[in-house]
Amino acid sequence: MKIESINNSKVKAWLKLQNKKYRDEENLFLIEGEHLLKEALKVNLVKEIISSDISFKVDGIPFYEVTPLIIKKISMQVSGTNVIAVVKKIPEKEILGNVCMLDNIQDPGNLGAIIRSATAFNIDTLVLSLDTVDLYNEKVIRASEGMIFHLNIIRRDLNNIICDLKKKGYTIYGTDVNKGHDLKNIVFNEKSCIIIGNEGKGMSNTLKSSCHELINIVISKDCESLNASVASSIIFYELDRSK
Amino acid sequence: MKIESINNSKVKAWLKLQNKKYRDEENLFLIEGEHLLKEALKVNLVKEIISSDISFKVDGIPFYEVTPLIIKKISMQVSGTNVIAVVKKIPEKEILGNVCMLDNIQDPGNLGAIIRSATAFNIDTLVLSLDTVDLYNEKVIRASEGMIFHLNIIRRDLNNIICDLKKKGYTIYGTDVNKGHDLKNIVFNEKSCIIIGNEGKGMSNTLKSSCHELINIVISKDCESLNASVASSIIFYELDRSK
Repeated sequence: MKIESINNSKVKAWLKLQNKKYRDEENLFLIEGEHLLKEALKVNLVKEIISSDISFKVDGIPFYEVTPLIIKKISMQVSGTNVIAVVKKIPEKEILGNVCMLDNIQDPGNLGAIIRSATAFNIDTLVLSLDTVDLYNEKVIRASEGMIFHLNIIRRDLNNIICDLKKKGYTIYGTDVNKGHDLKNIVFNEKSCIIIGNEGKGMSNTLKSSCHELINIVISKDCESLNASVASSIIFYELDRSK
Repeated sequence: MKIESINNSKVKAWLKLQNKKYRDEENLFLIEGEHLLKEALKVNLVKEIISSDISFKVDGIPFYEVTPLIIKKISMQVSGTNVIAVVKKIPEKEILGNVCMLDNIQDPGNLGAIIRSATAFNIDTLVLSLDTVDLYNEKVIRASEGMIFHLNIIRRDLNNIICDLKKKGYTIYGTDVNKGHDLKNIVFNEKSCIIIGNEGKGMSNTLKSSCHELINIVISKDCESLNASVASSIIFYELDRSK
Protein backbone atom coordinates (compact mmCIF):
# COMPACT_ATOMS: atom_id res chain seq x y z
CA MET A 1 0.00 0.00 0.00
CA LYS A 2 1.37 3.36 -1.02
CA ILE A 3 2.29 5.72 1.83
CA GLU A 4 0.82 9.15 1.15
CA SER A 5 0.90 10.91 4.50
CA ILE A 6 3.85 12.73 6.03
CA ASN A 7 2.37 11.73 9.40
CA ASN A 8 2.73 8.01 8.71
CA SER A 9 4.82 6.40 11.46
CA LYS A 10 7.33 4.94 8.94
CA VAL A 11 7.88 8.38 7.44
CA LYS A 12 8.46 9.84 10.90
CA ALA A 13 11.02 7.11 11.68
CA TRP A 14 12.86 7.75 8.39
CA LEU A 15 12.96 11.50 9.01
CA LYS A 16 14.55 10.93 12.41
CA LEU A 17 17.51 9.27 10.69
CA GLN A 18 18.50 12.68 9.32
CA ASN A 19 19.87 13.28 12.84
CA LYS A 20 23.05 11.72 14.18
CA LYS A 21 21.41 11.01 17.56
CA TYR A 22 18.83 8.68 16.02
CA ARG A 23 21.29 7.11 13.60
CA ASP A 24 23.40 6.15 16.63
CA GLU A 25 20.38 4.88 18.61
CA GLU A 26 18.98 2.79 15.75
CA ASN A 27 22.34 1.79 14.25
CA LEU A 28 20.89 2.75 10.86
CA PHE A 29 21.48 5.49 8.29
CA LEU A 30 20.01 6.75 5.03
CA ILE A 31 21.49 6.67 1.55
CA GLU A 32 20.15 8.37 -1.57
CA GLY A 33 20.30 7.54 -5.26
CA GLU A 34 20.78 4.49 -7.46
CA HIS A 35 24.57 4.38 -7.31
CA LEU A 36 24.72 4.26 -3.51
CA LEU A 37 21.87 1.75 -3.38
CA LYS A 38 23.82 -0.51 -5.73
CA GLU A 39 26.94 -0.28 -3.54
CA ALA A 40 24.96 -0.96 -0.34
CA LEU A 41 23.22 -3.97 -1.90
CA LYS A 42 26.61 -5.51 -2.76
CA VAL A 43 27.43 -5.74 0.95
CA ASN A 44 23.96 -6.89 2.07
CA LEU A 45 23.29 -4.00 4.44
CA VAL A 46 20.05 -2.61 2.95
CA LYS A 47 17.11 -2.89 5.38
CA GLU A 48 14.39 -0.97 3.49
CA ILE A 49 13.99 0.65 0.09
CA ILE A 50 11.78 3.74 -0.30
CA SER A 51 10.69 5.15 -3.67
CA SER A 52 7.74 6.36 -5.71
CA ASP A 53 9.07 4.16 -8.54
CA ILE A 54 8.38 0.45 -8.01
CA SER A 55 11.15 -0.53 -10.43
CA PHE A 56 13.52 -0.10 -7.45
CA LYS A 57 12.05 -3.20 -5.76
CA VAL A 58 14.68 -5.81 -4.87
CA ASP A 59 13.88 -9.42 -3.96
CA GLY A 60 13.96 -10.07 -0.24
CA ILE A 61 14.13 -6.44 0.87
CA PRO A 62 11.04 -4.60 2.21
CA PHE A 63 9.96 -1.96 -0.32
CA TYR A 64 7.85 1.09 0.56
CA GLU A 65 6.05 2.91 -2.24
CA VAL A 66 5.65 6.56 -1.27
CA THR A 67 4.62 9.82 -2.96
CA PRO A 68 7.30 11.99 -4.61
CA LEU A 69 6.57 14.59 -1.92
CA ILE A 70 7.58 12.15 0.83
CA ILE A 71 10.82 11.31 -1.03
CA LYS A 72 11.52 15.03 -1.28
CA LYS A 73 10.90 15.45 2.44
CA ILE A 74 13.27 12.63 3.45
CA SER A 75 16.00 13.56 0.94
CA MET A 76 18.75 15.87 2.20
CA GLN A 77 20.05 16.67 -1.28
CA VAL A 78 19.09 20.03 -2.80
CA SER A 79 18.68 18.44 -6.23
CA GLY A 80 16.44 15.65 -4.86
CA THR A 81 16.62 11.91 -5.54
CA ASN A 82 14.46 9.08 -6.85
CA VAL A 83 15.28 6.38 -4.30
CA ILE A 84 16.26 6.30 -0.63
CA ALA A 85 17.32 3.30 1.43
CA VAL A 86 17.60 2.58 5.13
CA VAL A 87 20.93 0.87 5.64
CA LYS A 88 22.46 -0.92 8.63
CA LYS A 89 25.64 0.71 9.93
CA ILE A 90 28.72 -1.03 8.60
CA PRO A 91 30.19 -3.55 11.09
CA GLU A 92 33.72 -2.72 12.27
CA LYS A 93 36.42 -5.26 11.44
CA GLU A 94 39.91 -5.95 12.74
CA ILE A 95 42.65 -3.45 11.87
CA LEU A 96 44.62 -4.90 8.97
CA GLY A 97 46.84 -3.90 6.05
CA ASN A 98 47.54 -0.26 5.18
CA VAL A 99 46.10 1.98 7.88
CA CYS A 100 45.16 5.67 7.80
CA MET A 101 44.05 7.66 10.84
CA LEU A 102 42.16 10.93 10.68
CA ASP A 103 42.75 13.33 13.55
CA ASN A 104 39.73 15.64 13.90
CA ILE A 105 38.70 16.01 10.23
CA GLN A 106 35.71 18.38 10.32
CA ASP A 107 34.54 18.91 6.74
CA PRO A 108 32.12 16.18 5.57
CA GLY A 109 33.21 16.69 1.95
CA ASN A 110 36.83 16.10 2.95
CA LEU A 111 36.01 12.91 4.86
CA GLY A 112 34.00 11.58 1.90
CA ALA A 113 36.78 12.43 -0.56
CA ILE A 114 39.40 10.81 1.70
CA ILE A 115 37.32 7.61 1.86
CA ARG A 116 37.03 7.58 -1.96
CA SER A 117 40.80 8.04 -2.45
CA ALA A 118 41.63 5.58 0.34
CA THR A 119 39.65 2.91 -1.50
CA ALA A 120 41.27 3.86 -4.80
CA PHE A 121 44.77 3.48 -3.36
CA ASN A 122 44.23 0.31 -1.34
CA ILE A 123 44.09 1.64 2.20
CA ASP A 124 42.53 -1.25 4.17
CA THR A 125 41.57 0.41 7.45
CA LEU A 126 40.56 3.99 8.19
CA VAL A 127 40.49 5.01 11.85
CA LEU A 128 38.47 8.13 12.67
CA SER A 129 39.33 10.03 15.85
CA LEU A 130 36.45 10.45 18.30
CA ASP A 131 36.09 14.12 17.26
CA THR A 132 36.08 13.53 13.47
CA VAL A 133 32.80 14.34 11.67
CA ASP A 134 30.11 11.59 11.65
CA LEU A 135 30.73 8.94 8.98
CA TYR A 136 26.98 8.65 8.36
CA ASN A 137 26.47 12.37 7.62
CA GLU A 138 24.70 12.63 4.25
CA LYS A 139 27.45 14.82 2.76
CA VAL A 140 30.17 12.35 3.76
CA ILE A 141 28.32 9.45 2.12
CA ARG A 142 27.67 11.44 -1.05
CA ALA A 143 31.28 12.65 -1.39
CA SER A 144 32.55 9.09 -0.82
CA GLU A 145 30.67 7.98 -3.98
CA GLY A 146 29.55 4.86 -2.11
CA MET A 147 33.11 3.85 -1.18
CA ILE A 148 32.23 3.74 2.56
CA PHE A 149 31.26 0.11 1.95
CA HIS A 150 34.65 -0.92 0.55
CA LEU A 151 37.07 -0.40 3.39
CA ASN A 152 37.08 -1.02 7.12
CA ILE A 153 36.22 2.25 8.91
CA ILE A 154 36.34 2.40 12.70
CA ARG A 155 36.10 5.21 15.27
CA ARG A 156 38.51 5.11 18.22
CA ASP A 157 40.83 7.03 20.49
CA LEU A 158 43.85 7.34 18.19
CA ASN A 159 46.42 7.27 21.01
CA ASN A 160 45.28 3.80 22.05
CA ILE A 161 45.31 2.46 18.51
CA ILE A 162 48.82 3.80 17.90
CA CYS A 163 50.14 1.75 20.85
CA ASP A 164 48.49 -1.40 19.47
CA LEU A 165 49.86 -0.81 15.97
CA LYS A 166 53.39 -0.22 17.25
CA LYS A 167 53.27 -3.57 19.04
CA LYS A 168 52.27 -5.18 15.76
CA GLY A 169 55.31 -3.72 13.99
CA TYR A 170 53.67 -0.80 12.20
CA THR A 171 55.59 2.36 11.35
CA ILE A 172 53.53 5.45 12.20
CA TYR A 173 53.86 8.35 9.73
CA GLY A 174 52.47 11.72 10.78
CA THR A 175 52.10 14.84 8.67
CA ASP A 176 53.68 18.22 9.45
CA VAL A 177 54.07 21.08 6.96
CA ASN A 178 56.94 22.59 8.97
CA LYS A 179 59.00 19.71 10.35
CA GLY A 180 58.06 16.84 8.01
CA HIS A 181 60.48 15.10 5.62
CA ASP A 182 59.83 15.44 1.89
CA LEU A 183 57.33 12.77 0.81
CA LYS A 184 59.55 12.01 -2.21
CA ASN A 185 62.23 10.62 0.10
CA ILE A 186 60.00 8.52 2.38
CA VAL A 187 60.60 4.76 2.24
CA PHE A 188 57.37 3.21 3.50
CA ASN A 189 57.41 0.17 5.75
CA GLU A 190 55.46 -2.92 4.68
CA LYS A 191 53.17 -2.15 7.65
CA SER A 192 52.37 1.56 7.39
CA CYS A 193 49.97 3.82 9.24
CA ILE A 194 49.50 7.40 8.01
CA ILE A 195 47.96 10.11 10.19
CA ILE A 196 46.20 13.10 8.59
CA GLY A 197 45.47 16.15 10.76
CA ASN A 198 42.66 18.67 11.09
CA GLU A 199 42.04 21.04 8.16
CA GLY A 200 43.15 24.21 9.96
CA LYS A 201 45.32 23.09 12.84
CA GLY A 202 46.97 19.92 11.50
CA MET A 203 47.77 17.01 13.82
CA SER A 204 47.74 17.40 17.59
CA ASN A 205 51.19 17.64 19.20
CA THR A 206 50.52 14.58 21.38
CA LEU A 207 49.92 12.46 18.30
CA LYS A 208 52.93 13.94 16.50
CA SER A 209 55.21 12.93 19.34
CA SER A 210 53.98 9.32 18.96
CA CYS A 211 55.01 9.13 15.29
CA HIS A 212 58.15 7.42 13.99
CA GLU A 213 58.42 9.88 11.13
CA LEU A 214 56.73 13.10 9.95
CA ILE A 215 55.91 13.67 6.27
CA ASN A 216 55.56 16.91 4.33
CA ILE A 217 54.49 17.41 0.71
CA VAL A 218 56.76 20.14 -0.62
CA ILE A 219 54.74 22.89 -2.34
CA SER A 220 55.29 26.35 -3.81
CA LYS A 221 55.82 29.18 -1.34
CA ASP A 222 52.85 30.97 -2.99
CA CYS A 223 50.50 28.38 -1.50
CA GLU A 224 49.98 28.05 2.25
CA SER A 225 48.73 24.47 2.27
CA LEU A 226 47.00 21.73 0.32
CA ASN A 227 43.39 20.72 0.87
CA ALA A 228 43.29 17.87 3.45
CA SER A 229 41.72 15.40 1.01
CA VAL A 230 44.25 16.28 -1.71
CA ALA A 231 47.19 15.88 0.70
CA SER A 232 45.81 12.53 1.91
CA SER A 233 45.29 11.30 -1.64
CA ILE A 234 48.86 12.14 -2.69
CA ILE A 235 50.30 10.28 0.32
CA PHE A 236 48.01 7.26 -0.37
CA TYR A 237 49.14 7.34 -4.02
CA GLU A 238 52.81 7.27 -2.98
CA LEU A 239 52.23 4.51 -0.43
CA ASP A 240 50.38 2.44 -3.03
CA ARG A 241 53.02 2.91 -5.70
CA SER A 242 55.79 1.95 -3.25
CA LYS A 243 54.33 -1.57 -2.93
CA MET B 1 29.10 58.21 6.09
CA LYS B 2 27.77 54.84 7.12
CA ILE B 3 25.42 53.17 4.62
CA GLU B 4 22.34 51.90 6.43
CA SER B 5 19.78 51.31 3.70
CA ILE B 6 19.50 48.23 1.51
CA ASN B 7 18.10 50.59 -1.14
CA ASN B 8 21.29 52.63 -1.34
CA SER B 9 22.58 52.66 -4.95
CA LYS B 10 26.01 51.28 -3.92
CA VAL B 11 24.38 48.35 -2.13
CA LYS B 12 22.28 47.62 -5.21
CA ALA B 13 25.38 47.65 -7.40
CA TRP B 14 27.22 45.25 -5.05
CA LEU B 15 24.28 42.86 -4.94
CA LYS B 16 24.24 42.71 -8.74
CA LEU B 17 27.77 41.29 -8.65
CA GLN B 18 26.34 38.08 -7.18
CA ASN B 19 25.30 37.32 -10.77
CA LYS B 20 27.69 36.26 -13.52
CA LYS B 21 25.97 38.53 -16.06
CA TYR B 22 26.86 41.68 -14.08
CA ARG B 23 30.33 40.44 -13.15
CA ASP B 24 31.02 40.08 -16.88
CA GLU B 25 29.50 43.50 -17.72
CA GLU B 26 31.38 45.36 -14.98
CA ASN B 27 34.56 43.27 -15.12
CA LEU B 28 34.39 43.09 -11.33
CA PHE B 29 33.70 40.41 -8.72
CA LEU B 30 33.24 40.04 -4.96
CA ILE B 31 35.47 38.37 -2.43
CA GLU B 32 34.70 37.65 1.22
CA GLY B 33 36.83 37.41 4.34
CA GLU B 34 40.21 38.64 5.57
CA HIS B 35 42.32 35.94 3.92
CA LEU B 36 41.01 36.61 0.42
CA LEU B 37 41.24 40.39 0.95
CA LYS B 38 44.91 39.98 1.89
CA GLU B 39 45.59 37.94 -1.27
CA ALA B 40 43.74 40.44 -3.51
CA LEU B 41 45.60 43.40 -1.96
CA LYS B 42 48.94 41.74 -2.81
CA VAL B 43 48.11 41.96 -6.52
CA ASN B 44 46.59 45.49 -6.38
CA LEU B 45 43.17 44.54 -7.73
CA VAL B 46 40.96 45.74 -4.86
CA LYS B 47 38.57 48.52 -5.94
CA GLU B 48 36.39 48.94 -2.84
CA ILE B 49 36.31 47.54 0.69
CA ILE B 50 32.97 47.08 2.48
CA SER B 51 32.64 46.36 6.20
CA SER B 52 30.92 47.35 9.41
CA ASP B 53 34.37 47.29 11.03
CA ILE B 54 36.52 50.33 10.13
CA SER B 55 39.72 48.47 11.06
CA PHE B 56 39.55 46.99 7.54
CA LYS B 57 40.34 50.42 6.00
CA VAL B 58 43.38 50.35 3.71
CA ASP B 59 45.26 53.46 2.51
CA GLY B 60 44.31 54.52 -1.01
CA ILE B 61 41.30 52.21 -1.38
CA PRO B 62 37.71 53.53 -1.04
CA PHE B 63 36.16 52.12 2.16
CA TYR B 64 32.40 51.85 2.76
CA GLU B 65 31.16 51.49 6.30
CA VAL B 66 27.87 49.58 6.27
CA THR B 67 25.57 47.90 8.79
CA PRO B 68 26.10 44.20 9.64
CA LEU B 69 22.73 43.54 7.96
CA ILE B 70 24.03 44.88 4.64
CA ILE B 71 27.15 42.72 4.90
CA LYS B 72 24.90 39.73 5.54
CA LYS B 73 22.80 40.59 2.50
CA ILE B 74 25.80 40.87 0.14
CA SER B 75 27.59 37.79 1.53
CA MET B 76 26.93 34.50 -0.27
CA GLN B 77 28.42 32.37 2.51
CA VAL B 78 26.03 30.62 4.87
CA SER B 79 28.30 31.34 7.82
CA GLY B 80 28.59 35.06 6.97
CA THR B 81 31.68 37.22 6.82
CA ASN B 82 33.09 40.42 8.33
CA VAL B 83 34.54 42.06 5.22
CA ILE B 84 33.71 42.05 1.51
CA ALA B 85 35.69 43.62 -1.33
CA VAL B 86 34.92 44.55 -4.90
CA VAL B 87 37.82 43.31 -6.98
CA LYS B 88 38.83 43.91 -10.61
CA LYS B 89 38.88 40.74 -12.70
CA ILE B 90 42.37 39.37 -13.05
CA PRO B 91 44.05 40.40 -16.34
CA GLU B 92 44.93 37.46 -18.61
CA LYS B 93 48.62 36.97 -19.40
CA GLU B 94 50.55 35.11 -22.07
CA ILE B 95 50.57 31.29 -21.89
CA LEU B 96 53.86 30.25 -20.32
CA GLY B 97 55.50 27.41 -18.38
CA ASN B 98 53.56 24.37 -17.19
CA VAL B 99 50.06 24.47 -18.62
CA CYS B 100 46.87 22.75 -17.50
CA MET B 101 43.60 22.83 -19.46
CA LEU B 102 40.20 22.06 -17.96
CA ASP B 103 37.64 20.59 -20.33
CA ASN B 104 34.14 21.38 -19.03
CA ILE B 105 34.73 21.22 -15.26
CA GLN B 106 31.31 21.89 -13.73
CA ASP B 107 31.66 21.74 -9.96
CA PRO B 108 32.79 25.08 -8.45
CA GLY B 109 34.42 23.27 -5.51
CA ASN B 110 36.49 21.19 -7.94
CA LEU B 111 37.63 24.22 -9.93
CA GLY B 112 38.64 26.01 -6.72
CA ALA B 113 40.52 22.95 -5.43
CA ILE B 114 42.29 22.50 -8.80
CA ILE B 115 43.42 26.16 -8.71
CA ARG B 116 44.77 25.67 -5.18
CA SER B 117 46.71 22.52 -6.12
CA ALA B 118 47.90 24.02 -9.42
CA THR B 119 49.48 26.89 -7.48
CA ALA B 120 50.97 24.46 -4.96
CA PHE B 121 52.64 22.39 -7.70
CA ASN B 122 53.88 25.25 -9.89
CA ILE B 123 51.43 25.12 -12.79
CA ASP B 124 51.93 28.51 -14.48
CA THR B 125 48.88 28.75 -16.76
CA LEU B 126 45.40 27.30 -16.36
CA VAL B 127 43.18 27.36 -19.46
CA LEU B 128 39.43 26.97 -18.82
CA SER B 129 37.27 25.68 -21.68
CA LEU B 130 34.42 27.98 -22.68
CA ASP B 131 31.93 25.65 -20.94
CA THR B 132 33.83 25.36 -17.63
CA VAL B 133 32.13 26.91 -14.57
CA ASP B 134 32.67 30.67 -14.00
CA LEU B 135 36.00 31.45 -12.32
CA TYR B 136 34.39 34.28 -10.35
CA ASN B 137 31.66 32.12 -8.81
CA GLU B 138 31.79 32.62 -5.03
CA LYS B 139 32.30 28.88 -4.35
CA VAL B 140 35.24 28.69 -6.77
CA ILE B 141 36.96 31.62 -5.10
CA ARG B 142 36.38 30.20 -1.63
CA ALA B 143 37.64 26.70 -2.51
CA SER B 144 40.73 28.20 -4.17
CA GLU B 145 41.74 29.72 -0.80
CA GLY B 146 42.68 32.92 -2.62
CA MET B 147 45.03 31.14 -5.03
CA ILE B 148 43.17 32.56 -8.08
CA PHE B 149 45.54 35.53 -7.83
CA HIS B 150 48.71 33.45 -8.08
CA LEU B 151 48.57 31.84 -11.51
CA ASN B 152 47.58 32.93 -14.99
CA ILE B 153 44.00 31.76 -15.64
CA ILE B 154 42.46 32.28 -19.09
CA ARG B 155 39.25 31.10 -20.78
CA ARG B 156 39.50 29.95 -24.41
CA ASP B 157 38.48 27.39 -27.00
CA LEU B 158 40.84 24.55 -26.05
CA ASN B 159 41.21 23.22 -29.61
CA ASN B 160 42.71 26.51 -30.77
CA ILE B 161 45.12 26.71 -27.83
CA ILE B 162 46.31 23.14 -28.40
CA CYS B 163 47.38 24.05 -31.96
CA ASP B 164 49.32 27.06 -30.66
CA LEU B 165 51.01 25.03 -27.94
CA LYS B 166 52.03 22.28 -30.36
CA LYS B 167 53.72 24.89 -32.57
CA LYS B 168 55.64 26.08 -29.50
CA GLY B 169 56.94 22.54 -28.84
CA TYR B 170 54.60 21.53 -26.03
CA THR B 171 53.68 17.88 -25.42
CA ILE B 172 49.93 17.55 -24.80
CA TYR B 173 48.94 14.96 -22.16
CA GLY B 174 45.29 13.98 -21.95
CA THR B 175 43.62 11.83 -19.31
CA ASP B 176 41.71 8.61 -20.01
CA VAL B 177 40.79 5.99 -17.39
CA ASN B 178 40.50 3.27 -20.05
CA LYS B 179 43.20 3.87 -22.63
CA GLY B 180 45.71 6.01 -20.70
CA HIS B 181 49.25 4.95 -19.80
CA ASP B 182 50.10 4.50 -16.12
CA LEU B 183 51.11 7.89 -14.66
CA LYS B 184 54.07 6.18 -12.95
CA ASN B 185 55.68 5.54 -16.35
CA ILE B 186 55.09 8.97 -17.91
CA VAL B 187 58.24 10.96 -18.70
CA PHE B 188 57.11 14.57 -18.88
CA ASN B 189 58.49 16.95 -21.48
CA GLU B 190 60.12 20.21 -20.35
CA LYS B 191 57.10 21.93 -21.97
CA SER B 192 54.05 20.05 -20.73
CA CYS B 193 50.33 20.68 -21.05
CA ILE B 194 47.92 18.47 -19.07
CA ILE B 195 44.22 18.24 -19.93
CA ILE B 196 41.65 17.29 -17.25
CA GLY B 197 38.17 16.21 -18.35
CA ASN B 198 34.62 16.71 -17.08
CA GLU B 199 33.69 15.08 -13.74
CA GLY B 200 31.28 12.55 -15.23
CA LYS B 201 32.18 12.20 -18.89
CA GLY B 202 35.92 12.81 -18.91
CA MET B 203 37.62 14.55 -21.85
CA SER B 204 35.83 15.02 -25.17
CA ASN B 205 36.94 12.63 -27.93
CA THR B 206 37.95 15.52 -30.19
CA LEU B 207 40.39 16.76 -27.58
CA LYS B 208 41.67 13.25 -26.85
CA SER B 209 42.56 12.77 -30.51
CA SER B 210 44.69 15.94 -30.35
CA CYS B 211 46.83 14.63 -27.49
CA HIS B 212 50.33 13.21 -27.86
CA GLU B 213 49.80 10.87 -24.92
CA LEU B 214 46.96 9.80 -22.61
CA ILE B 215 47.52 9.35 -18.85
CA ASN B 216 45.72 7.13 -16.36
CA ILE B 217 46.18 6.92 -12.59
CA VAL B 218 45.95 3.22 -11.77
CA ILE B 219 43.49 2.59 -8.92
CA SER B 220 41.80 -0.35 -7.17
CA LYS B 221 39.05 -2.13 -9.09
CA ASP B 222 36.74 -1.39 -6.12
CA CYS B 223 36.78 2.30 -7.02
CA GLU B 224 35.27 3.59 -10.25
CA SER B 225 37.20 6.85 -10.44
CA LEU B 226 39.01 9.54 -8.50
CA ASN B 227 37.53 12.95 -7.77
CA ALA B 228 38.56 15.36 -10.57
CA SER B 229 40.47 17.68 -8.24
CA VAL B 230 42.28 14.73 -6.61
CA ALA B 231 43.26 13.27 -10.01
CA SER B 232 44.49 16.70 -11.18
CA SER B 233 46.49 17.23 -7.99
CA ILE B 234 48.26 13.87 -8.29
CA ILE B 235 49.25 14.58 -11.90
CA PHE B 236 50.47 18.10 -10.96
CA TYR B 237 52.46 16.54 -8.09
CA GLU B 238 54.16 14.07 -10.47
CA LEU B 239 54.84 16.79 -13.06
CA ASP B 240 56.37 19.00 -10.38
CA ARG B 241 58.55 16.25 -8.91
CA SER B 242 59.81 15.31 -12.40
CA LYS B 243 61.47 18.72 -12.80
